[in-house]
Amino acid sequence: MRTALCDTLGIDLPIVGFTPSQHVAAAISKAGGLGVLGCVRFNDADELDKVLGWMDENTDGKPYGVDIVMPSKVPTEGSSMDLSKLIPDEHKAFVERTLAQLGVPELPEDTEERAGVLGWLHSVARSHVEVSLKHPIKLIANALGSPPVDVIEQAHEHGVPVAALAGKAEHARRHVDNGVDIVVAQGYEAGGHTGEIASMVLLPEIADAVGREVPVLAAGGIGSGRQAAAALALGAAGVWTGSIWLTTREYLETMPESQAVQQALVQATSSDTVRTRIYTGKPARLLKTRWTEAWSAPDAPEPLPMPLQNLLVSPAHNRIHAAADPSVVSMPVGQIVGRMNDVRPVADVLSEMVAEFDEAVTRMVSVKQS
Amino acid sequence: MRTALCDTLGIDLPIVGFTPSQHVAAAISKAGGLGVLGCVRFNDADELDKVLGWMDENTDGKPYGVDIVMPSKVPTEGSSMDLSKLIPDEHKAFVERTLAQLGVPELPEDTEERAGVLGWLHSVARSHVEVSLKHPIKLIANALGSPPVDVIEQAHEHGVPVAALAGKAEHARRHVDNGVDIVVAQGYEAGGHTGEIASMVLLPEIADAVGREVPVLAAGGIGSGRQAAAALALGAAGVWTGSIWLTTREYLETMPESQAVQQALVQATSSDTVRTRIYTGKPARLLKTRWTEAWSAPDAPEPLPMPLQNLLVSPAHNRIHAAADPSVVSMPVGQIVGRMNDVRPVADVLSEMVAEFDEAVTRMVSVKQS
Repeated sequence: MRTALCDTLGIDLPIVGFTPSQHVAAAISKAGGLGVLGCVRFNDADELDKVLGWMDENTDGKPYGVDIVMPSKVPTEGSSMDLSKLIPDEHKAFVERTLAQLGVPELPEDTEERAGVLGWLHSVARSHVEVSLKHPIKLIANALGSPPVDVIEQAHEHGVPVAALAGKAEHARRHVDNGVDIVVAQGYEAGGHTGEIASMVLLPEIADAVGREVPVLAAGGIGSGRQAAAALALGAAGVWTGSIWLTTREYLETMPESQAVQQALVQATSSDTVRTRIYTGKPARLLKTRWTEAWSAPDAPEPLPMPLQNLLVSPAHNRIHAAADPSVVSMPVGQIVGRMNDVRPVADVLSEMVAEFDEAVTRMVSVKQS
Repeated sequence: MRTALCDTLGIDLPIVGFTPSQHVAAAISKAGGLGVLGCVRFNDADELDKVLGWMDENTDGKPYGVDIVMPSKVPTEGSSMDLSKLIPDEHKAFVERTLAQLGVPELPEDTEERAGVLGWLHSVARSHVEVSLKHPIKLIANALGSPPVDVIEQAHEHGVPVAALAGKAEHARRHVDNGVDIVVAQGYEAGGHTGEIASMVLLPEIADAVGREVPVLAAGGIGSGRQAAAALALGAAGVWTGSIWLTTREYLETMPESQAVQQALVQATSSDTVRTRIYTGKPARLLKTRWTEAWSAPDAPEPLPMPLQNLLVSPAHNRIHAAADPSVVSMPVGQIVGRMNDVRPVADVLSEMVAEFDEAVTRMVSVKQS
């Protein structure tokens, strides 16, 4: 399983794996794919610097990348203190009331209150870029589309290609015009931020729009070798995977407190996701739980715009995480969650993907020749 | 391009084409696929009988099938007169007001008022089955899932296999347990009635659930050879296509007044569809037009349940059709409408599909071997 993308990125398999866990990212890279570390959870650039240092020591010199969340339009800036003043009391009251109704306890008084996630802020994202470029990264991806053009230029000065997610062909066109090197076509079925066009339709559209100029990666619904084969049949040069890594053993090494999350994911079917604005303010697909259902109730307020919504729910996420109740998890995941039915090592997921890809191609050759 | 499905159905290509047009269905069958005639538009079984007689004379002895809309649970029965009493005045007033706002004129006074579509009614659907089984049909499909078990048995007594659409693996399992012979896995991106799980995820789930027992056809997002290749990579034994035939030349032979519809479809992008209950009362994907947008406005009533909603909007559909304004079309279509950019003969669509399928497989073999 090899495409031109492998040469571009110096990898053995055209499989990119996005994950917030450095242990998972390192394992993907060591197994021949490209591990891409999600940086949005790092409020402090020094913390990211340390983790990337760990990556440098634990990837056997294999390539890895980073994913930074950076809207191309600079949003309202400020510290979390300033921004939190913009959150209506109605919303704060709804979150408090809902957590009480769901039986999510307050954090113990001696808990160090973790700040809201600031990685959505432009200034923080820029500090992530600065820090990342001091490490031997092989890719900067932006989950929100084109980064600002000066950031693209900065990456290029360091010889680092830039990838951007697109949910429509016109967005892909704009990314390439802005200088983006790799387009990730993210279909409706994907976890996290996602548009309305499904991969089966989106991928050939984006491949035809920009595939002659840049590699197009398929994202959304890709967790198995058959799905990777389908993606390549549709015109992708490789696949961008995310959800599938949430139920790996290595994930627990970074997030030992995530056992309840993994339990909820393993139990879920492909019908158990919902596309909603409650996580960040933009439509994102999450695991459907009692928490997401509460936001669909008639008394629920409209979610706030980015970045306010995430600041609103971040303290709730901390409480939910500590409660470790699988029925009240808040977790972005794609529709392939229905096939994430056990917790496995990263290398097993990758080797099974390759074997299934080969099987699918063999099957198709026999259809062509019959 | 040949699978076991070809032997099962006596066809050359594992491509089934659903269409309300007998001219399109015949052309698909003559070109090596299986044309499946949608019967819901025939209120009168004699009318269907005549059209099937035409099919018998115009398919060169090639196999064809019929699609009948038959809920497995028998809904409220009665004539259109009885049922129309169940439609609230608020809904009737909204439709009248909306048509006036959209500039859709009333029908001329001398127009013979066509009755609402009754094909959704159980009794009418059963008369369709009776009539169809007098013709040499090779498939009865049910767009709403399993037909009643006695209808399946009736078809089997005539040696006719039965296909049923499924939007979830559990539905597919139920269909096969009921005696259904072919499962059509219909993804979110499909036109008409559709669920929430996209083809990339749904298809391998359904293939794994029932694919060892019955052939699984991929529906939703399939209009090109690359998409057919992806479907087969995901585990399908063939494809079920629908939208793509709406912009064929033969479609106009059956529906000469559909030029405005074709114009609207040719202009639309893959973002220009909406999944809504306004067509039948169940979620179905339609072309997004000023008509569908009106139903999303704050003053719009909730759509009625099946079969009332279709009885409510059928007279409006007649007026809309006569108005021939591409911006006010009411037409089920999938997300592949973005790639339906010209009006072509059926045979060209099929031959391009086969050529592109072969190209995709060749491309994948090189990926596997690299």
